[in-house]
Amino acid sequence: MQAESFRIKAEDGLARRGVLLTARGPVQTPVFMPVGTAGSVKSLCPQDLTHIGTQMILGNTYHLYLRPGDELLARQGGLHAFSSWQGPILTDSGGFQVFSLSALRRVSEEGVDFTSHIDGSKHFFTPEGVVRIQEKIGSDIMMVLDECVSHGTDFERTREAMLRTSRWAERSLQARARPTQQLLFGIVQGGFFPRLREQSAREICDLPFDGYAIGGLSVGEPKTVLWEMLRETAPLLPRERPRYLMGVGKPLDILRAIAEGMDMFDCVLPTRNARNGTLYTSRGKITIKQARYREDSLPLDPDCSCYTCRTFSRAYLRHLYVSRELLAYRLNTLHNLAFYLDLIRGAREAISRGELAEYIAAYEAVFPEETD
Amino acid sequence: MQAESFRIKAEDGLARRGVLLTARGPVQTPVFMPVGTAGSVKSLCPQDLTHIGTQMILGNTYHLYLRPGDELLARQGGLHAFSSWQGPILTDSGGFQVFSLSALRRVSEEGVDFTSHIDGSKHFFTPEGVVRIQEKIGSDIMMVLDECVSHGTDFERTREAMLRTSRWAERSLQARARPTQQLLFGIVQGGFFPRLREQSAREICDLPFDGYAIGGLSVGEPKTVLWEMLRETAPLLPRERPRYLMGVGKPLDILRAIAEGMDMFDCVLPTRNARNGTLYTSRGKITIKQARYREDSLPLDPDCSCYTCRTFSRAYLRHLYVSRELLAYRLNTLHNLAFYLDLIRGAREAISRGELAEYIAAYEAVFPEETD
Repeated sequence: MQAESFRIKAEDGLARRGVLLTARGPVQTPVFMPVGTAGSVKSLCPQDLTHIGTQMILGNTYHLYLRPGDELLARQGGLHAFSSWQGPILTDSGGFQVFSLSALRRVSEEGVDFTSHIDGSKHFFTPEGVVRIQEKIGSDIMMVLDECVSHGTDFERTREAMLRTSRWAERSLQARARPTQQLLFGIVQGGFFPRLREQSAREICDLPFDGYAIGGLSVGEPKTVLWEMLRETAPLLPRERPRYLMGVGKPLDILRAIAEGMDMFDCVLPTRNARNGTLYTSRGKITIKQARYREDSLPLDPDCSCYTCRTFSRAYLRHLYVSRELLAYRLNTLHNLAFYLDLIRGAREAISRGELAEYIAAYEAVFPEETD
Repeated sequence: MQAESFRIKAEDGLARRGVLLTARGPVQTPVFMPVGTAGSVKSLCPQDLTHIGTQMILGNTYHLYLRPGDELLARQGGLHAFSSWQGPILTDSGGFQVFSLSALRRVSEEGVDFTSHIDGSKHFFTPEGVVRIQEKIGSDIMMVLDECVSHGTDFERTREAMLRTSRWAERSLQARARPTQQLLFGIVQGGFFPRLREQSAREICDLPFDGYAIGGLSVGEPKTVLWEMLRETAPLLPRERPRYLMGVGKPLDILRAIAEGMDMFDCVLPTRNARNGTLYTSRGKITIKQARYREDSLPLDPDCSCYTCRTFSRAYLRHLYVSRELLAYRLNTLHNLAFYLDLIRGAREAISRGELAEYIAAYEAVFPEETD
């Protein structure tokens, strides 16, 4: 059902600032969701997430279903109670992970057979089953099961997957049991063919979802193709619903997608890069293991107010990283997420002032290497 | 110099409750020092340490000298400024690590040649050099370089090392530059020969150290031998100085050593066990990966008030551990250290009440498997 779950508060060109109402409180959009794959944003505790201003996190249905399992989560009171994260949670449908992680998979009209990447056990996801799993997880926003195709898939195969995604979307809507407590989003597919993207957008947006996502992008295609697809698709999504660009991306990609009217984002980059020692700062990216930081007593980012930047020097962060100290992962992750969250908060404020273009231009000047 | 750095506040049999005055504030004894090998108590930040009541941490001179290096630490303002831990720090002398970690080593009267376990580079520690390194590190309590022998070393070889340790102790005292800012402790050696332990204690305690440590125990000898050596040596240490039992040990060992009059302790057990999923609770040890905790929604230790126990269930901690989530190491470490610190705080209070024996008996009843 389409309750009044989204309100637009300001617009700036195609960009919008809004509020998404979830069962666990309002979310200011545009919003970036840190990825908590298996019930934990790697290395951080819920307090850390709150301190840096996290509004909503993302959980992976595929991972949570395999471990600890949706039945166990239901008995433990859902993922919120289990993980002690009390803010909103969005769960993806597992579709992307089935296609990217699982060794063996077979798609039929009914659903998708796959084997676990953990122990090789066999499993079967259906659109209805995936809604039920997410209901057990208790996420605030559920995603429908979709069929993803890789970059390079031909037109006919892409079309087939797109049409099946539409049929699965209808079945997902029928399947859900608690529409007032858990929002359900549809996903637009269509690979890299503008005609198919358009058809998918029309079919998915004809269905009464609480929000609409663009899936299947940022899977290895050239950046120009991503933007072509996004500019083709975003305007077809209803203005009055939240729009979620799945799995994107670099900071500048997110800012540009905001300028195209997208509202919600998730990506493993800030957390994964943090664990690999690549750190974002307001003055550019830093590879913390480099010898140049050996005696650098400056904060990682002098303009950042996160615990890492308030407390430690680059020299200490480098020492922790090259010594493979566990604390390195946490301090780096905390900062990279704080950077992303601050960046998106700035974008929200820029939209309210009608200055998003200037905000993005200022960012491009700092990160020229990312303007590919 | 022997300033008034230690005051006894209460006694209970041989056990004492006291205050150790350091340049960075008073330390209530008996005290347990979490081990922060290379400038970080693995997985924890200074805030975490403060929250669980950490008074003083231990740093390893051997590790800090090799990485990030004492010269770098001096330029960065010392280990406190570098790591942002503002409480007192004790550094060991590196003697134990040279003997346990370094592949090649050669002891002469002048000092000890060794190769780095990190990159095979060659180094030379002297008693004077080790004091200078610790002065650069800026620790509040420094330890003298000593020569350790393994369990099973013969009498003559043990005697030789013990006598050298005495000569090195004198050189260490001569070498230090800032006696009012950094305390210096001597170390009693003598292997597993009561006669040599006694001679070492007399020689070391004749020197005006700020405190006296018993080294070379808990290196693989039977537990009965450890207690025999400790009961032999502890009474020979001056009553009016703090007494440090290096590298010991299990909770019950620490309690029993407190009963023998020891004041200071460090051990990697709580932190290392935490990373291996072995967790201490007021009801006994828990191996968190066991299937029995899969759906156990109780806190790890219902009697503990640490963040881990206040916030998460055993089921969630098990999930994090079996999923190899980074957060597992931190939550487990936080709890195990909280357990140790609470246990020692309880011992301090028991000494004040004159009830240490009862306190230890209550602990023995919970951990019968440790009464070996």
